Amino acid sequence: MTSPEPTPDATTDPPGSPAARAPEAADLVITGCTALVHDEREEIGFVEDATIVVRGGRIATIAGGPADLLAAGLADAEHIDARGQVAMPGLVNCHTHTPMVTLRGIAEDLPIEEWFNEYVWPIESNLQERDVELGARLACAEMIRGGVTCFADHYFSMDTVAAVTAESGLRANLGQAFFSSQGAEGRERSLDFALRHRDTADGRITTSLAPHAPYTVDDADLAATAGLAREHGLLVHLHAAENRAQTDASLARHGRTPIEVLAEAGLLDTDLLIAHGTGIVERDLPVLARATGRVGVASAPRGYLKFAWPTTTPVRALRELGIPVGLATDGAASNNSLDVWESMALTALAQKFTEADPRRLTSRQALHHATLQSARAVGLGERIGSLAPGRRADIVLVDLSGPHTQPVHDLAATLVHSARSGDVRTTIVDGRILMRDRELLTLDVPAVVREMNERMPTLIDRAHGRRVQEYET
Amino acid sequence: MTSPEPTPDATTDPPGSPAARAPEAADLVITGCTALVHDEREEIGFVEDATIVVRGGRIATIAGGPADLLAAGLADAEHIDARGQVAMPGLVNCHTHTPMVTLRGIAEDLPIEEWFNEYVWPIESNLQERDVELGARLACAEMIRGGVTCFADHYFSMDTVAAVTAESGLRANLGQAFFSSQGAEGRERSLDFALRHRDTADGRITTSLAPHAPYTVDDADLAATAGLAREHGLLVHLHAAENRAQTDASLARHGRTPIEVLAEAGLLDTDLLIAHGTGIVERDLPVLARATGRVGVASAPRGYLKFAWPTTTPVRALRELGIPVGLATDGAASNNSLDVWESMALTALAQKFTEADPRRLTSRQALHHATLQSARAVGLGERIGSLAPGRRADIVLVDLSGPHTQPVHDLAATLVHSARSGDVRTTIVDGRILMRDRELLTLDVPAVVREMNERMPTLIDRAHGRRVQEYET
Repeated sequence: MTSPEPTPDATTDPPGSPAARAPEAADLVITGCTALVHDEREEIGFVEDATIVVRGGRIATIAGGPADLLAAGLADAEHIDARGQVAMPGLVNCHTHTPMVTLRGIAEDLPIEEWFNEYVWPIESNLQERDVELGARLACAEMIRGGVTCFADHYFSMDTVAAVTAESGLRANLGQAFFSSQGAEGRERSLDFALRHRDTADGRITTSLAPHAPYTVDDADLAATAGLAREHGLLVHLHAAENRAQTDASLARHGRTPIEVLAEAGLLDTDLLIAHGTGIVERDLPVLARATGRVGVASAPRGYLKFAWPTTTPVRALRELGIPVGLATDGAASNNSLDVWESMALTALAQKFTEADPRRLTSRQALHHATLQSARAVGLGERIGSLAPGRRADIVLVDLSGPHTQPVHDLAATLVHSARSGDVRTTIVDGRILMRDRELLTLDVPAVVREMNERMPTLIDRAHGRRVQEYET
Repeated sequence: MTSPEPTPDATTDPPGSPAARAPEAADLVITGCTALVHDEREEIGFVEDATIVVRGGRIATIAGGPADLLAAGLADAEHIDARGQVAMPGLVNCHTHTPMVTLRGIAEDLPIEEWFNEYVWPIESNLQERDVELGARLACAEMIRGGVTCFADHYFSMDTVAAVTAESGLRANLGQAFFSSQGAEGRERSLDFALRHRDTADGRITTSLAPHAPYTVDDADLAATAGLAREHGLLVHLHAAENRAQTDASLARHGRTPIEVLAEAGLLDTDLLIAHGTGIVERDLPVLARATGRVGVASAPRGYLKFAWPTTTPVRALRELGIPVGLATDGAASNNSLDVWESMALTALAQKFTEADPRRLTSRQALHHATLQSARAVGLGERIGSLAPGRRADIVLVDLSGPHTQPVHDLAATLVHSARSGDVRTTIVDGRILMRDRELLTLDVPAVVREMNERMPTLIDRAHGRRVQEYET
């Protein structure tokens, strides 16, 4: 799936393009690192002692061997000496609800019905713009610290999330969520948001239409969304077949799986990002194979284990159809963190277990999900997802000097199974450093936490008995 | 399970006892932290603004409310201001093979048969004392950094591991592994090691007899081991019913499960630490219920997922029998890390998934496994595992100021599902600080890694075709 918007192509910067406009995108040179790259068959490889040159927010060159910055005319560029570190594409959180970090840990050890109906949806009826703003800010801080450079967000008050995204320096695909219970207005607001914000923040923000799910958005609304997506060239981002119970309920109610509902609504003929899909069943596979749009799936395995769902995303079957499966965390109210690094490891482990096959996912396959597949899933397959000339300079530097990542016999395995999100030392988006040596440069966490805690009693009050929606698969 | 050796009791320090002998066990006061404690029913609770006073390597007092160090006569004690941090009992790695960190990542994405026969056992036939020493040192560094204060190790060349344990400042239960293929000598060496090292390193080292497993140690050797354990009051630490295939093979071969083999050998009448037990089946439960020794099980869930084993340790069934289930990582050659914090989260998640019940393990249950149950599993239930007066001062301080651990609605959930091993700032064993603000004070990681890498080509050479043992369930 590529970006549906008209954007500057991957290798040149036309005058007036977002990158050329960005004054903070100073030239940058990273030297001495081991760089994770993809070959022409998209196999993961590593370049030793690599030098990465960034110009205008893009990767200009990447090459192995020691660099003479003076000889290369780079003496004035900002320089990061990254010896002992691995440079890799920034992680992409392909499905999250950033403001929900505010509710991290508020509804623990519950089935999804109670989690939604007793806690999350009652509390969300109290949600104010300022709560969304503080939550989004904390979430962006957490993601930058964890090596995430791009996220796909699906929530309410997305104008506020867009403003925080711009401030944070991160890249994002943002969608204003809606339910059919909101009437036509919900869908119209989602479209209005998508059109106003597409390609803003120097091109770092792309947008999507964001119906909540087939069990909260009716067939007519889904079909109308598909029409709008085609008309405006927009990605659609929604929850579907989240778990097997939803698929069973959909079959019992109208004889169709959630994927079949999407197909009949025309959504498989649009660019589509499906969150979760652990309820995708055998009969869905030929339906997905006939999709004419670019379909991607976001997998957030921690939450599936925590909710005790019987299955995880069927990664092998989806890969056999050529469908990219990106990594995600979902919101922190269910997942307890926005740690995409953990999602990478858990995806590898959960796939081995559910397929009863220790040979896959290999660490290299997991890294492919974390890089190119995640970029494609959020519609940015041409812009990010690999360290290659012309791609946006979304780079993280990972410190492997800790005792838990030594010795290194297999660097892919070290990254997936031994390294942790906390080993990311430096996070760069569009060539701009957002975290340097673990220090956040764009966000003030203590100030956010202080105000968030002051507002908390009002936010989490459930005495009113309202909820934004009812969960019933 | 309590320590089988004669040791000073938990609340007094008789003159000449190990703690009284330890000159480095300076008095220490920790103030301002939130302390994880257990009530009389062993429920987890938290004391706000706690002051912990350590004397002679033990916790002397622990109490809530601000401390006036001058008034309390503590002005000369070493002082840690731990505001914003949580003090909890150090984690216990209940089953590992420390020197195997040297092989981290060398045999990836393989079934256990190939992992053992093609890589691990051929390479281990090259193992020299110096390799064991460097590996143990790196492992201790990794564990201290990850908040582990005690480990149960089961490997070869354990005299060397004991020396490194003493040097590192960690607490450990150590066992010299043996196979029946070594003849009577293996068992005799295991006993000799256990007797020479018990209660050394100022009491921080306890020991066990360490037959490898029922599939590599014959019935006669197991029975002899049980006799020696009873005679000398020693713990027995071994692998058993590691996976379902081993149980099936045992049944096919001689009509008994591995647990029944242990029972017939008399090992359930000794203090026994069983590693893994994912192959424990229904018929084993009454056998375990009749155990007259103190039996514990160590669970290392990451490796079970990675090897694609069909089951995990049956924690619920074991708990219903009152058997403690401690947390473990196994060796890093299979698990890729010694991250017990991750084992804690994965145990909670894997139990929810395999029992199809999101309500358990709760985070508090996971913390109970991580603390008292882990201490009991390694035979130290009276000495460590809780922050209470008289217990050894094995304490870790966890920093929750990061964006990924804020806000805090449920501190137990924050610890289990949001915090990471890298959030441990300070690690204390017997009142001695082994890591302060992430800086290791007893071990030199770069020097270890340098020499380890120099020795690596010789160590990992498999051209000779030897192996220390053959894996055949």
